[in-house]
Amino acid sequence: MALEVFMISGSPFAWRVLLALELKGLPYETRVLQVSKDEQKAPAFLAINPRGRVPALRDGDTVVCESVAILAYLDRKVPTPPLFGATPAEAARVWQAVLETVSDFDRPTEDYIVPIYFGRATEEAAKIRAAVPTLRAELARLDATLRDRTWLVGNRITAADIVLYPVVKSVERAAGKPGAEPFGLGFVPVDDRYRSLARWMRQIEALPGYERTYPPHWR
Amino acid sequence: MALEVFMISGSPFAWRVLLALELKGLPYETRVLQVSKDEQKAPAFLAINPRGRVPALRDGDTVVCESVAILAYLDRKVPTPPLFGATPAEAARVWQAVLETVSDFDRPTEDYIVPIYFGRATEEAAKIRAAVPTLRAELARLDATLRDRTWLVGNRITAADIVLYPVVKSVERAAGKPGAEPFGLGFVPVDDRYRSLARWMRQIEALPGYERTYPPHWR
Repeated sequence: MALEVFMISGSPFAWRVLLALELKGLPYETRVLQVSKDEQKAPAFLAINPRGRVPALRDGDTVVCESVAILAYLDRKVPTPPLFGATPAEAARVWQAVLETVSDFDRPTEDYIVPIYFGRATEEAAKIRAAVPTLRAELARLDATLRDRTWLVGNRITAADIVLYPVVKSVERAAGKPGAEPFGLGFVPVDDRYRSLARWMRQIEALPGYERTYPPHWR
Repeated sequence: MALEVFMISGSPFAWRVLLALELKGLPYETRVLQVSKDEQKAPAFLAINPRGRVPALRDGDTVVCESVAILAYLDRKVPTPPLFGATPAEAARVWQAVLETVSDFDRPTEDYIVPIYFGRATEEAAKIRAAVPTLRAELARLDATLRDRTWLVGNRITAADIVLYPVVKSVERAAGKPGAEPFGLGFVPVDDRYRSLARWMRQIEALPGYERTYPPHWR
């Protein structure tokens, strides 16, 4: 039976899982929950993740929640191509980058994108304003890091790239919305302003399978 | 050469690394940074971790930051005893528990303990007050989870336990301080109020090597 991915269209955290599945070449089916119907908090989904969060992966009897945990699981289940490095030293660099994204990027991204996506930018202006300096610092840091690298770690795509890309892409999308204008993140157009980061993003977008992971409602 | 652990005494994140090193039986030396001298923001340490955060691990030419990344590295370097499960299904459960601790427990713990430890509970009362309901919910959830389990995942200690213990222990310590009284977390005495969680904590405290990991300035 195919792997089932419980997701919300446009969730950067669920997107990580789809990218990993494409990279591993594993067949999967998506189960798209409707936020407008609060399906992520309905009993059917709470039986899968009591925290009511996506993504969740079901693989037969095994259910895994938390995007990074799902990536670690998939890498143990199907070790090639390796998502977490081929050597301990490479694993160290990949895991450090993954955890830095989780610790430093995920929350300001959510604080920035969710109010803008859901038309609450005025009501939640304070939250967005608090996220902007952190995002700006992280984006600048990444652009500098990627100046002389093809991928974040080593010479192939790893979990470091997969975990980061959907949050950066979500910030790019939110930053282009009219509601984002007053906050002046200065991120778009990325291709003009953050050239190394943009090159890295476009390279991920050229991967085979990328189109299948693209949030359906973004088209 | 022994592994070097850059840490701050009492940092729950650094404590994870010491527990993992003891479990793996690896020789290590601690480099204790003095917060009072801002040593974690001094150039010597910023050369190791530009984010100025502990823990960091140096293993010859390899430097790893982020506590969970260090655990993943150590497990790749020395695979037994396994910190992240013996099978993919076990790995899934360990990683999910680890990421839930990182996502749901780390921040409210910091928001609660740091002001109390540093005598700023009155000034930062709002932050502490915001953390209390989350901590209470997480602690209750854990106590329920541990009711019929010896360890968080499977029948041996794993990274799930190692990542969680220092944050819970830090909350226990902070909750016993006079500055914590007005906030009524209701966590201590843990052995009376959260019996399953307490049993699990005391079991970790009975591990060989535990004493060597205990924060020096807590004695």
